[in-house]
Amino acid sequence: MAFGWIEEQARGRHRAGLVRRLSPRPAASSLLDLASNDYLGLARHPEVTEGAARAARTWGGGATGSRLVTGTTELHAELERELAAFCGFEAALVFSSGYAANLAAVTALGPHGSLVVSDAGNHASLIDGCRLARGETQVVGHADPQAVRKALATHEGTAIVVSDTVFSVDGDRAPLVRLAEACRERGAGLVVDDAHGLGVLGDGGRGAAQATGLAGAPDVVATATLSKSLGSQGGVVLGPAPVIDHLVNAARTFIFDTGLAPAAAGAALAALRLLGREPERAARAREVAGELHARLTASGLEAVRPDAAVVSVRAPSPEQAVRWAADCRTAGLAVGCFRPPSVPDGISRLRLTARADLSGAEIARAVRVIGETRPEPA
Amino acid sequence: MAFGWIEEQARGRHRAGLVRRLSPRPAASSLLDLASNDYLGLARHPEVTEGAARAARTWGGGATGSRLVTGTTELHAELERELAAFCGFEAALVFSSGYAANLAAVTALGPHGSLVVSDAGNHASLIDGCRLARGETQVVGHADPQAVRKALATHEGTAIVVSDTVFSVDGDRAPLVRLAEACRERGAGLVVDDAHGLGVLGDGGRGAAQATGLAGAPDVVATATLSKSLGSQGGVVLGPAPVIDHLVNAARTFIFDTGLAPAAAGAALAALRLLGREPERAARAREVAGELHARLTASGLEAVRPDAAVVSVRAPSPEQAVRWAADCRTAGLAVGCFRPPSVPDGISRLRLTARADLSGAEIARAVRVIGETRPEPA
Repeated sequence: MAFGWIEEQARGRHRAGLVRRLSPRPAASSLLDLASNDYLGLARHPEVTEGAARAARTWGGGATGSRLVTGTTELHAELERELAAFCGFEAALVFSSGYAANLAAVTALGPHGSLVVSDAGNHASLIDGCRLARGETQVVGHADPQAVRKALATHEGTAIVVSDTVFSVDGDRAPLVRLAEACRERGAGLVVDDAHGLGVLGDGGRGAAQATGLAGAPDVVATATLSKSLGSQGGVVLGPAPVIDHLVNAARTFIFDTGLAPAAAGAALAALRLLGREPERAARAREVAGELHARLTASGLEAVRPDAAVVSVRAPSPEQAVRWAADCRTAGLAVGCFRPPSVPDGISRLRLTARADLSGAEIARAVRVIGETRPEPA
Repeated sequence: MAFGWIEEQARGRHRAGLVRRLSPRPAASSLLDLASNDYLGLARHPEVTEGAARAARTWGGGATGSRLVTGTTELHAELERELAAFCGFEAALVFSSGYAANLAAVTALGPHGSLVVSDAGNHASLIDGCRLARGETQVVGHADPQAVRKALATHEGTAIVVSDTVFSVDGDRAPLVRLAEACRERGAGLVVDDAHGLGVLGDGGRGAAQATGLAGAPDVVATATLSKSLGSQGGVVLGPAPVIDHLVNAARTFIFDTGLAPAAAGAALAALRLLGREPERAARAREVAGELHARLTASGLEAVRPDAAVVSVRAPSPEQAVRWAADCRTAGLAVGCFRPPSVPDGISRLRLTARADLSGAEIARAVRVIGETRPEPA
C-alpha cells in the first residue's frame, strides 16, 4: 500500500501521546480565550469585520490571480502604503500568509554564495526559508549576538542574520540592538520576524523594529503577520524600496501565489487604522501580560517573564501539559499547549495570550483556573 | 552596504528587459479580463461575496490562531466536508493558500528515505515542496509516464509521484491514468495538483481526479486552490482520512500557520455550493477555451490546444510578449504574459483564461485585439 507507512507512524504517535486532533469551535463560546493570537482583541471588532465585508463586496471574494497579473488591487497598494508608514519603513509587500512572507524574505535575501545566520529558536517558516534559500545556513544559539558575530566572521561576502523579534514559545525578545551591531560590523543585513511584536511593541504597537530604532534603516528588513494583532490573515515584508522591488521580482512565494484576498486586506487595513486611533491597546496588551505573569508566579507556577504579550508556563511532561490544558478547558478557559515537536527544547508548556481586552476579573479567573488544574510535579 | 548587491541585480534585470512591476487595479474597470484565474467568473458573484461578508461578521476577520489551537471553526470543518464530498475524496484539509497546501502534501508524503518523482513542468510550489521534503527528488521529463516508471524502478521503499493535473503555462493535461498505472506497478502514491482542474474538469467541475476515476482511491492525493474557480483564497489537500490525519500531525505549513480567514472559507463554500447547483459552468469554461483556441489558430496564431480553461499563445521574445500584452491592454484587453524565469522552457507566451462567463461577442473582441496587436515574427 502506497501510504501504509502513515498508519504505522500514526500508531507511534498514539503510543507516545502526541496525537493532534482538530476541534472545530462554534461562532459563540463561553470559553475565556487565552489561546488565540488575537493580541489586541480586534478579530471580532465590528470595524474590522465590516472592513472585511466591505472589501469582499467592492473587490470580490478573491484577488483572482498572482499579484503580478490581476492580483494587485488599489486596496493592496493602500494597505502596503499604510503598513510601511505605520511601522516606519520605506516600503511594504503583502503576502497571503506570514509563512509565505518569511519564505520570500529569507530565500530572496539569502542567494547562492551568501550566508544566512539563523537563531536556533526561530519560527518554522524562517527555518523553511533557510532550507529553501540557495545560501548556506548557520544555526546559532538562541539570542546570542556573540555567536552571530562568530558565524559572520567565517564568511566573506553577502550575509543576513535572521531572527524572530519575540519568540513564539516563551514570548522572550531577541537582542535586536546587539544583533544589529553585530550585523553592521560585517556589513550584513538583519531580517527580523515581528509576528508577535507588531501591535504590541513600539510606540502604539509600531513593532519591535520601531521600538529599537531600527525601523527604516537601509540594512534592516522586518516581516510580520496580519493574522495576530491585526485580526485578519496574511503577511508583510517591510524594508527599503529596492529590497521590496527585489522581492517582487525574485520571491517565488510572491510571484507564484494568488494575491491576498480583498476581505483579508480590508480587515487588516481597518485594524491598522483602529490601532492608529487607539494606540493605548498596545500598552494594555503588555500590561495584561505583566499582570498574568506576576499572579501566576505569585501562586507558585513557573512562568517566563513576558517581553510582549505571550506568557509561557512550564508543564512537567507532554501528557501532563495536554491534560492541564484539557482541564482548563473543562473549567471554561482556553489556553494553548505547546509540546514536542513544536518546541525547540523538548519542554512542554501552557501558552497564554495576554489580550488587550481582558478585564481584571478575567485575568483573576484565568490565574485561578490554571492554579487549580495544575498537575503534580513529575 | 548590506543590500547593495540587490541594486546590481536590478540593473541586470533592467538591461534584460525582465523588470516586473505591480499595477494596482481599480474596483471597476472597462478592461475585458482574460488574465485572471477566475475560471468560472465567481469571484464577483454576489453569493460568493456575501458568503465572505457573512463569514467575517459571524466568525471574525481572522481565524485567530493555528488550526490546531483556535484556528479551526465549524465553518472550516463544513468547508472541508463539502470539498471532500464534491471532489469524491474521503477527507479534506484546508490551508491558507494553494502554495501552503502543496508544500504540506509533498513534504509530509515525501519523508526521509523516500523517493519523490516530480514532473519537469510542475508548479513552483510543488518544486519548493520537493526541495523541502526530506526524501530524494528525481525530476523527470514533462508528462512522461515511461520516465516516471524508470525513476520509480531505481528505488526500493516509499515513493510518490507528483504532478500538476493541468499545467499552468500551456494549459496541457498530465496523463493521469497512465501515471496512476506507473505508480501502482511499484506501490507508489500519486499526488496531483488540481489547481487548474477543480471547477473546470470532471462532472460539473469535480476536478481531474474525478474525471479520470482516481478520486477517492487509497493511493491518490489531490491538492487544489480555492483562489481560482472558487473565487476566494486558500488551498486544500484531498485524500484518504489517514493521509489527512497525517498532515494534521506532520505538515509544518499546516501546524505553524494561522488558519484560513473565515471570509475566505465562506466565499469558497458559497462558490462550491453555487457550482453544485450550476454544474454547466464547468463545461462552459472548457467550451470557451475551445472557441478561443479555434479562432486564434484560424487567424494564424500559434496556440496550444486547451485541455482545460487556459489558452497559451506563443510570443517571439520576452520583450515582444511584454509589448504585445501592453498593446492588448491599450486596446482594452487584459491578458497574462508569461516569460522567463516563470516558464520552464524559456519560451514567452500570452496566457489567456477562458472564463465561463465570457460572451460570444467578448470572445470575438479578444481574438480581434490579439490578432491586431500581434508582433512581427523575430
